[in-house]
Amino acid sequence: MPKIVDHAQRHTEIVHALWQVIYLKGIDGVSFRSVAEAAGISIGRVQHYFPSRSELILEGCRQIVDSAEAAGPEGADASSAPGSAEAVSALREFCFAFIPAGETMRIGASVWYTYVARAVMDEQIADIIRASDRATLELGVRLYRAVVGGDGAADADDAAGTGGTGGTDASDGADGTKGEAVTAWAMRMIALGKGLAQEVMLDERSAASAKAILEAELAPLVAH
Amino acid sequence: MPKIVDHAQRHTEIVHALWQVIYLKGIDGVSFRSVAEAAGISIGRVQHYFPSRSELILEGCRQIVDSAEAAGPEGADASSAPGSAEAVSALREFCFAFIPAGETMRIGASVWYTYVARAVMDEQIADIIRASDRATLELGVRLYRAVVGGDGAADADDAAGTGGTGGTDASDGADGTKGEAVTAWAMRMIALGKGLAQEVMLDERSAASAKAILEAELAPLVAH
Repeated sequence: MPKIVDHAQRHTEIVHALWQVIYLKGIDGVSFRSVAEAAGISIGRVQHYFPSRSELILEGCRQIVDSAEAAGPEGADASSAPGSAEAVSALREFCFAFIPAGETMRIGASVWYTYVARAVMDEQIADIIRASDRATLELGVRLYRAVVGGDGAADADDAAGTGGTGGTDASDGADGTKGEAVTAWAMRMIALGKGLAQEVMLDERSAASAKAILEAELAPLVAH
Repeated sequence: MPKIVDHAQRHTEIVHALWQVIYLKGIDGVSFRSVAEAAGISIGRVQHYFPSRSELILEGCRQIVDSAEAAGPEGADASSAPGSAEAVSALREFCFAFIPAGETMRIGASVWYTYVARAVMDEQIADIIRASDRATLELGVRLYRAVVGGDGAADADDAAGTGGTGGTDASDGADGTKGEAVTAWAMRMIALGKGLAQEVMLDERSAASAKAILEAELAPLVAH
């Protein structure tokens, strides 16, 4: 019987081997040889899937971004009834997805921070991360709107703690929702999630403690 | 005239060369040779100051932590009058110190994230980072208390958005301040600062925008 090798699976195995190399030796430790050794396959096989070392490194970044996005809420959108339990639970899941749980995710987070550190000098990596962060912000805004509804302006102001700053009182569109306040809330939650993720990765804080802090931010929305 | 070399200055130059190597090649690119080349001195000279490669790497982490702490508010403590302009300004400076400003600090942030990524597998680096984060939290708690004063319990609850969660109503000590709420506020601001720092480093957000988000968190305290 001919040996059937699934293309996508082999591709994934190589990316996992790449992450292992980055975790252990950093991005500069990546070569066709080191990745082939980690994957237990020939160098030629790696080259068959990835034309260049730099394409391999970029693909590793794209996949880690994709896997983070996949960990977010499934099929959640603004179509749920405003303030419904489904909408709140989708927003909660979105916030909790920042927090690495378990050893595998801690290693994944380490690889992620290696890419983040490299992005300062590598525009291609920076572009991938920025695009992902833009998509994350859009999703956060959509999920937050689904919770507070079209007239959630006051809630947004309260929850974002921007009520005292003034100057953001212009309505944004016919639905009356203050776009700036909604975006500010999402930006703040995302930054908070990123900061907490770092502390969980470093074992300074448990995943449960990070989630409790995020939950406290959601509480004023849930109480409504 | 004999050449006078200042020990501390040479030590600092070697650490700066080390950061440059880490920025360009990662921690695995660090060797006595690569650091000597970056510093423009002999390998023997580097070894004179640092007995081992791993001690050099750890010292680079300690110094980056020290430089971050030095960027914080000077001599700020809880001795200022509660709610005084000095107390508020010290707390603001503490929050703003997370945000990298300018190209040099972006490179420093990249080196910092390289250490953070490595900490997952290196307990000695993790210990340095955790000790620094503990000190940062203590400072944040002290500065926050200086703003809200001994009876700042209600303020703390409001500002931390934990008012709706309940269960944290026990007073902490004779001064009547709810220790848990104060700590929660500081933990939250620090995590937020870390997350925003990452976005500024990646040029996703300006330093001014990050500071505006932090300022909005401070607004309820200043209004008092």
